[in-house]
Amino acid sequence: MDSTVADPQQENTARLIVQGTDCPGIVRAITGTLADFGANIASLDQHTSDPEGGRFFQRTLFSLPNLSAVVEDLRTRLGEVLNEFGMEWQLVEAKRLKRVAVFASKSDHCLLDLLWRQRRGELPVSITMVVSNHPDLSDDVRAFGIPYFYVPVEKGRREEAEARHLELLQDNVDLVVLARYMQVLTEDFINRVGVPIINIHHSFLPAFIGAGPYRKAKERGVKLIGATAHYVTKDLDEGPIIAQDVISVTHRETADDLQRRGADVERRVLSTAVEAHCEDRVLRDGNATIVF
Amino acid sequence: MDSTVADPQQENTARLIVQGTDCPGIVRAITGTLADFGANIASLDQHTSDPEGGRFFQRTLFSLPNLSAVVEDLRTRLGEVLNEFGMEWQLVEAKRLKRVAVFASKSDHCLLDLLWRQRRGELPVSITMVVSNHPDLSDDVRAFGIPYFYVPVEKGRREEAEARHLELLQDNVDLVVLARYMQVLTEDFINRVGVPIINIHHSFLPAFIGAGPYRKAKERGVKLIGATAHYVTKDLDEGPIIAQDVISVTHRETADDLQRRGADVERRVLSTAVEAHCEDRVLRDGNATIVF
Amino acid sequence: MDSTVADPQQENTARLIVQGTDCPGIVRAITGTLADFGANIASLDQHTSDPEGGRFFQRTLFSLPNLSAVVEDLRTRLGEVLNEFGMEWQLVEAKRLKRVAVFASKSDHCLLDLLWRQRRGELPVSITMVVSNHPDLSDDVRAFGIPYFYVPVEKGRREEAEARHLELLQDNVDLVVLARYMQVLTEDFINRVGVPIINIHHSFLPAFIGAGPYRKAKERGVKLIGATAHYVTKDLDEGPIIAQDVISVTHRETADDLQRRGADVERRVLSTAVEAHCEDRVLRDGNATIVF
Amino acid sequence: MDSTVADPQQENTARLIVQGTDCPGIVRAITGTLADFGANIASLDQHTSDPEGGRFFQRTLFSLPNLSAVVEDLRTRLGEVLNEFGMEWQLVEAKRLKRVAVFASKSDHCLLDLLWRQRRGELPVSITMVVSNHPDLSDDVRAFGIPYFYVPVEKGRREEAEARHLELLQDNVDLVVLARYMQVLTEDFINRVGVPIINIHHSFLPAFIGAGPYRKAKERGVKLIGATAHYVTKDLDEGPIIAQDVISVTHRETADDLQRRGADVERRVLSTAVEAHCEDRVLRDGNATIVF
Repeated sequence: MDSTVADPQQENTARLIVQGTDCPGIVRAITGTLADFGANIASLDQHTSDPEGGRFFQRTLFSLPNLSAVVEDLRTRLGEVLNEFGMEWQLVEAKRLKRVAVFASKSDHCLLDLLWRQRRGELPVSITMVVSNHPDLSDDVRAFGIPYFYVPVEKGRREEAEARHLELLQDNVDLVVLARYMQVLTEDFINRVGVPIINIHHSFLPAFIGAGPYRKAKERGVKLIGATAHYVTKDLDEGPIIAQDVISVTHRETADDLQRRGADVERRVLSTAVEAHCEDRVLRDGNATIVF
Repeated sequence: MDSTVADPQQENTARLIVQGTDCPGIVRAITGTLADFGANIASLDQHTSDPEGGRFFQRTLFSLPNLSAVVEDLRTRLGEVLNEFGMEWQLVEAKRLKRVAVFASKSDHCLLDLLWRQRRGELPVSITMVVSNHPDLSDDVRAFGIPYFYVPVEKGRREEAEARHLELLQDNVDLVVLARYMQVLTEDFINRVGVPIINIHHSFLPAFIGAGPYRKAKERGVKLIGATAHYVTKDLDEGPIIAQDVISVTHRETADDLQRRGADVERRVLSTAVEAHCEDRVLRDGNATIVF
Repeated sequence: MDSTVADPQQENTARLIVQGTDCPGIVRAITGTLADFGANIASLDQHTSDPEGGRFFQRTLFSLPNLSAVVEDLRTRLGEVLNEFGMEWQLVEAKRLKRVAVFASKSDHCLLDLLWRQRRGELPVSITMVVSNHPDLSDDVRAFGIPYFYVPVEKGRREEAEARHLELLQDNVDLVVLARYMQVLTEDFINRVGVPIINIHHSFLPAFIGAGPYRKAKERGVKLIGATAHYVTKDLDEGPIIAQDVISVTHRETADDLQRRGADVERRVLSTAVEAHCEDRVLRDGNATIVF
Repeated sequence: MDSTVADPQQENTARLIVQGTDCPGIVRAITGTLADFGANIASLDQHTSDPEGGRFFQRTLFSLPNLSAVVEDLRTRLGEVLNEFGMEWQLVEAKRLKRVAVFASKSDHCLLDLLWRQRRGELPVSITMVVSNHPDLSDDVRAFGIPYFYVPVEKGRREEAEARHLELLQDNVDLVVLARYMQVLTEDFINRVGVPIINIHHSFLPAFIGAGPYRKAKERGVKLIGATAHYVTKDLDEGPIIAQDVISVTHRETADDLQRRGADVERRVLSTAVEAHCEDRVLRDGNATIVF
């Protein structure tokens, strides 16, 4: 599978992501460099956490005729300019889709939604593999033409499974998505995998951290249930939040009903987060996120 | 102030609220009794927590020509029928508005919203007094023709203030509403006041229990903020939830912005909960609620 | 495919739907009859359009041990009681799933969502066939083990296609769902098919009636787009509304983006409407609906 | 009343709004000019309707030490730069609050909400007068210390009233807000008043254009009702939409209930639109708006 798109509009489009300590002149430096190369800015979003010495975040979407021919020169020039300002930055060509591994267990709603959106051309990603600790969903996944790797996680032998995971992932993916993967990842795995990991949690975090959120929600008698997509960090359910949503519920719903209705929110929130991440619209600011 | 309404449609309308252990025949017994008196049922909501021996909850809204003349007979007859089934029940004439004391501190948004709605005839309540530990809002309240009692709560002398509160409330109100009243009530007060107390908490409970929820929400980087109206019990922020709502927020909002935008959700959720309670649409089921 | 469920909880559960001109005593008559048979009411919803001689609507969910054995007797007895009151009524055993034909064209989002939900056990229906005027979606559908009938609709030969449709549907289905079926049905077909038809319209009706709603929405500059599920009547886009929902949009979205994002609302609204209909929670009141 | 604020953070803050035909280099030109003056950009939003020769829209919020001293020089310099690109532009100091006249009739919910938000410091406006064709709300308004002008509009004598309106408004206001003002304005008035006019329409436009939207919504049986804030143009209910929102309703609500519940949406949508306009976040693009 080729992880690029042929859309001519995308062919010459790129995104420049910049962040660092705010200082005067930085926007001029960036837009000046782009203008020197003849780029046309399609949209520009900028946020400063504090006008006085806060953190600076910027995402610029631009088109540049013959992008491939000049992209390396542009990269070199941006490096000279932005390193002077001490900025972290990334230049991403829109045609290079992020390569994604989706991890799942037995629930199919989040996984199928991602596969189906990719097939429809709605999600600018290239899902290159699905990894699961159960064999149940293999037929569904392979019907989409995507490889399915069954890696059982036996009690007390998590390390073996994670070693296999790393073999599969290393250099092959730009993002891991946990689509209701019911295993906790070790801190060691998170450190070694080297790419961001997005998880969908089936509650409106920070409410109902941990297991069984729908049962807890029923017991607490809440009138809304929700889901949260967040980056995975070593602290379970504590990573930076990318997207959240809720729906109304009443006394009529049982805990099972909540789970069923919550599944709709989960798949919606997860695909929103994956889309935002893969369009480079999510910037981390400590344990929070900027979503342009 | 007369706590009844002259609306002829309300004049002959009543609500019957019944709850207890479910058993066959109870609905027939209730509707049969009402039919014997010539009542016409306008709406009937019934919920059973479990069809097999669960808890039974019912709210029936009905009209009965010449209600006042027969209401005591009806009450006697319902008592005979319902006590046999071991049910708790209440018969409430729609024209008898619940008498409400609103407690506030310095924030005016929830308080004024309730006063406006009452004046506009939107809220079927009779707000008979406002009690505050600050004098700031007295002019605003008195402009509505409603008495304002300033009862300062000095450090270490909470009991004195609560004794004064009980004098004001006893036999004078059917409901206490804490409209951003920034004092914790003692368990003793809650027990002695003898009427339900509704509080508005400025977060989507059970997230961000305790003080400073908007600051905590900013720190945690949530993408939704909310408010929760609940009955007050001795366990702070743990009582049965009546209503909740949320709004979307982004990285742009400061903690102050969240507080300002959250205020809109707070007043909306609080008035929704007060309206539901005062129309006898909220039934308690352990630490949860049925809202018909 | 067997259109019943083995769930023991469903086995003895039934729904009684009653509607007609309101008159005193009707609720007692219904609940009395159910009590005579030893039924236990799990939930009861009742609505009257006007307490004085309006229309009466009631849905009662009850369980009755050994339901199959007595259901015909119960039906006979209910007939005697309810016909006296001049009521229309229906007694439906929960285990008898409604048999559904889904009509689609080339868009797969609404169709696949219904198929997924049925497979997951979320939707209490038995989808017995998919009918399409295009062959494109046949593989996807047959992977679910459901027959796919390709019935092309040629210009000027609509009658032939509809004749074929009627052959397929007659006596085989209880409901037709138009899941983005891009053909207008003739009044003759609607009359002859003899079962309700639910359509999903890709706008917040009555805004943007007719074709191209997302393009019109973009031109009008609306800040919300939506979808509407409604029963089909001879007047295009004018039938009784069952469910509606919207999402926020901004100036950033192109008409294509609106269509893509709107697809999410469409499938959510359609499955909500189909679920409500198939649980007999939707009652028609002229050109409006009661959704219990 | 002084229409400036003393907030030191606002003192040196300004907004630059630029729009016109997109062309390469424009962002560099703007940010370069600001950098030359030592401005620090707090946020920058830019949108292009089409990367190839579309319309360009930009809003830049920046701070500049000693703004007042240099603002005229900056204005001159920006004029030289931006006129060369053929751009329309505006430089607005944040401390200069827009002066607003609110028009109302008998309904108070939108009017009071605006007055109260201004008093709380939530709305960056200076409401300098309220104009009404009824005397009813004068006491409420004057309690806020704001002048109330009662200008009756007699049948067939609209011109006289509008002449009086123009006398009151000319040179005194920057914005007119119609807060449920139940009179149609003449095209002549709209042309002569010389400032934008924002109206709140009590439906989700373009559904239910014209009078009586809640009654129409009840008749059509919709499941959501809404409100729309838009700029007033000569075509009734057809002007550019600034903000919209909806709430769920059911068969239970009468047309009167819809009106009452809709009032909540109206005041929320209107204040959102007024706030966005007064922070110069709304740019017109033909009959649509960009809201940054």
